[in-house]
Amino acid sequence: MNNLIIRNAKREDVKSIYTLINALAKFEKEEHAVQITVEELAEDGFGENPSYSCIVAELEGRVIGFALYFIRYSTWQGKTVYLEDFLVDENYRSKGIGKLLFEEMISIAQNLNVRQMSWQVLDWNEGAIRFYKKYEAEFADEWLNVRILFDKK
Amino acid sequence: MNNLIIRNAKREDVKSIYTLINALAKFEKEEHAVQITVEELAEDGFGENPSYSCIVAELEGRVIGFALYFIRYSTWQGKTVYLEDFLVDENYRSKGIGKLLFEEMISIAQNLNVRQMSWQVLDWNEGAIRFYKKYEAEFADEWLNVRILFDKK
Repeated sequence: MNNLIIRNAKREDVKSIYTLINALAKFEKEEHAVQITVEELAEDGFGENPSYSCIVAELEGRVIGFALYFIRYSTWQGKTVYLEDFLVDENYRSKGIGKLLFEEMISIAQNLNVRQMSWQVLDWNEGAIRFYKKYEAEFADEWLNVRILFDKK
Repeated sequence: MNNLIIRNAKREDVKSIYTLINALAKFEKEEHAVQITVEELAEDGFGENPSYSCIVAELEGRVIGFALYFIRYSTWQGKTVYLEDFLVDENYRSKGIGKLLFEEMISIAQNLNVRQMSWQVLDWNEGAIRFYKKYEAEFADEWLNVRILFDKK
């Protein structure tokens, strides 16, 4: 993996990131939940007042993994880093690419001087849970996610 | 409840909000999880580039409930409203104050033209779950919350 680069995402990467987002949704059995468009994702991340930041793993000019995050607020801990999506293309797993991306995320969170980095994992995703346990991550299982959907005008 | 007002929070409300945040953490059996200070909460909400917005229920000059929220990002749905904390003082429950606050939140989310308002609820908080079901909220129980804690410098 000599040619592997971990770097900040650029607007040109959005199409590749969008493809990976859809692959992740499919893995999570939520294929049809992706309502966002490539254009919206590009504008939201690389327009004025970006809503998220993103790092990518690039191998020989191709984006094969990403970690997308933003600062969110906790009334217990103040500003925290939230890891919204994190995926390595299934054809490039078990090569340590996820480890590089995730450790870069830890480093980003530490540099931002927050008290916490948090995310969610599906309770049946044993591979991911095993991975996170290596980092002494804490798991909480008594919270339900709740939502109300609206029609966007 | 003729004197009840639902309004945007002001910096002067932060001390009352902080007291309610601690009451909520105690109810959630996470009393010691509140690491934030009143000063930090004030600066984060009412300084430059606020990290959150907040509405309060005021009765006879006293803040007896609040809903604290911010815009967060979903790679499936774009910008969404996230309801971080929502509480009515236990001495003022069952009077419809929560209903007023929550319906104001729905109205805020609709005006922001997002596809979703989301939040979390403890799986044993039956009263809250019953309340949210009235609004046809969707519940998802297969996600675990995961976090890594850091020492803040």
